Amino acid sequence: MLLGSIEFRDDEITCAVSDGHINIKDKVEFPLTTPKENFKQIVEYFKKINDIKAIGISSFGPLEMRTYSPQYGYIKDSSRKNWSNVNVLGTLKKYLKVPMSFTTDVNSTAYGEYITSILENKPVLSLVYITISKGVGAGIVNDGELVGYKGSPEIGHICPKRHPKDQTFPGTCPYQGDCLEGLVSEPAFQARFNKSYKEISMFKPIWDIIAYYIAQSVVQSTLLIRPQKIIIGGDIINKIEIQKIKNEFKKLINNYIKVGDDGNLEGYISLPSNSSNKLSIIGNISLAKKVYYADGDEYAK
Amino acid sequence: MLLGSIEFRDDEITCAVSDGHINIKDKVEFPLTTPKENFKQIVEYFKKINDIKAIGISSFGPLEMRTYSPQYGYIKDSSRKNWSNVNVLGTLKKYLKVPMSFTTDVNSTAYGEYITSILENKPVLSLVYITISKGVGAGIVNDGELVGYKGSPEIGHICPKRHPKDQTFPGTCPYQGDCLEGLVSEPAFQARFNKSYKEISMFKPIWDIIAYYIAQSVVQSTLLIRPQKIIIGGDIINKIEIQKIKNEFKKLINNYIKVGDDGNLEGYISLPSNSSNKLSIIGNISLAKKVYYADGDEYAK
Repeated sequence: MLLGSIEFRDDEITCAVSDGHINIKDKVEFPLTTPKENFKQIVEYFKKINDIKAIGISSFGPLEMRTYSPQYGYIKDSSRKNWSNVNVLGTLKKYLKVPMSFTTDVNSTAYGEYITSILENKPVLSLVYITISKGVGAGIVNDGELVGYKGSPEIGHICPKRHPKDQTFPGTCPYQGDCLEGLVSEPAFQARFNKSYKEISMFKPIWDIIAYYIAQSVVQSTLLIRPQKIIIGGDIINKIEIQKIKNEFKKLINNYIKVGDDGNLEGYISLPSNSSNKLSIIGNISLAKKVYYADGDEYAK
Repeated sequence: MLLGSIEFRDDEITCAVSDGHINIKDKVEFPLTTPKENFKQIVEYFKKINDIKAIGISSFGPLEMRTYSPQYGYIKDSSRKNWSNVNVLGTLKKYLKVPMSFTTDVNSTAYGEYITSILENKPVLSLVYITISKGVGAGIVNDGELVGYKGSPEIGHICPKRHPKDQTFPGTCPYQGDCLEGLVSEPAFQARFNKSYKEISMFKPIWDIIAYYIAQSVVQSTLLIRPQKIIIGGDIINKIEIQKIKNEFKKLINNYIKVGDDGNLEGYISLPSNSSNKLSIIGNISLAKKVYYADGDEYAK
């Protein structure tokens, strides 16, 4: 059984093919250019593979994910040139004629973590995956199902309590100013220091402030979702010692509840088990398999 | 098909019986006294009813809800006299020998709202139910399934940003001080004013402050869960014009995302459709039905 994955990322598109046991058999990448050119490349790639059963698509947002919407499967008003109001799902279904799933890049990555845990026989049925880079997003799996009816979780736009030593920076979010994304994303570093976060030494006190803000989102996710695990990924996170986030979390939760499978904070807050790219492919392929068994009959007629 | 509901509430226990279509046929109430006496009353009540197929139990917390725990089905360290470390599910299963579900009072109420929406043919598949009275709790339904692996959502223990006119009150939560519960629950009013919230006029400025804190929890739920609807219930909420919460929500979300089925805030944030007691019975009975079809065979052997 062959299954496909299509990932729309910042500057490229990854297409991959896997067997039914989620072993990746092939992978190609195309630079993100125009919908016309990219759709042609994708369709040609998958047309060459005989008997592909279903494809999972993930993409940068904002996406229309409500299945009942006439625009279901669109990339909506994206800031990326050429990629606003693009009917991704409809176009690909038209040419490839197999069942397809459609979700955000963070959702597929979160789902990939869930599937990886099952494949490795250490099942994590309920998890929150937070990613911090240009933006701040989240994907949530509750008992094996993605959470979100109107769309995917938008954890980046919850406003945290400000750190006592960071009261004046207004934040960079055009809607809310000092929401999490407005305080800890790559553009926020650029606005604070007029240079990239990559150039800021890990010893600078700003990282304690950033850890405090991220820890609040871990607390929020913990208390609303009560998951087995919280995973934090993204470029920014590579600059922070994750122990700092754990320490802030500990202070904030102050023993109110036990977290993790055995109250062990070490295993509860963790880095991703693989690259987001790999996890997203695993997620897409697994979602494709799911949609195949749900929708397969329709296409078999 | 007869199904049962048992609700453990602050000062009484409600037992009810329904048909398979969730029409309530009978209901009795007992004052909450001791486990021994109350279990006897419950067992006698249900023993008299022939052929009950399954029972849904809901209770004040904290509960052990992890099915794999040896203490699954216990009321844990409750502040209520006689009711700490009580094996509710195990005891009732032993004497009544039917499949049983077990969840928090807020979860069953949230599930009751979900089922009510289905029965009334206006399906709300994804909702957050927040309750504000002695404590602050939440129940979350995502695509028809309750959210929470380690337990039920603990929205009351997320710390909101403090209102500019409410900077000094330390809050009443023994763990976190000024978390939502520590700022807006009944004990918080008692601590602030040395009298009950019931005695505070609705024209006092404190209600604007309270609305600001509650609105933050509505924003948090909106962004993490992306639901169709947020319902706010509980005793305190009867004192607040819900429009105040909507206004604060609007300011906080600042058009970042559209909410509700059609971006309509009026239908998005709403009061419960029925008393929490009635909703909880509907929820329990529906959860009983669900567990019957999942576990029924085991008991039929």
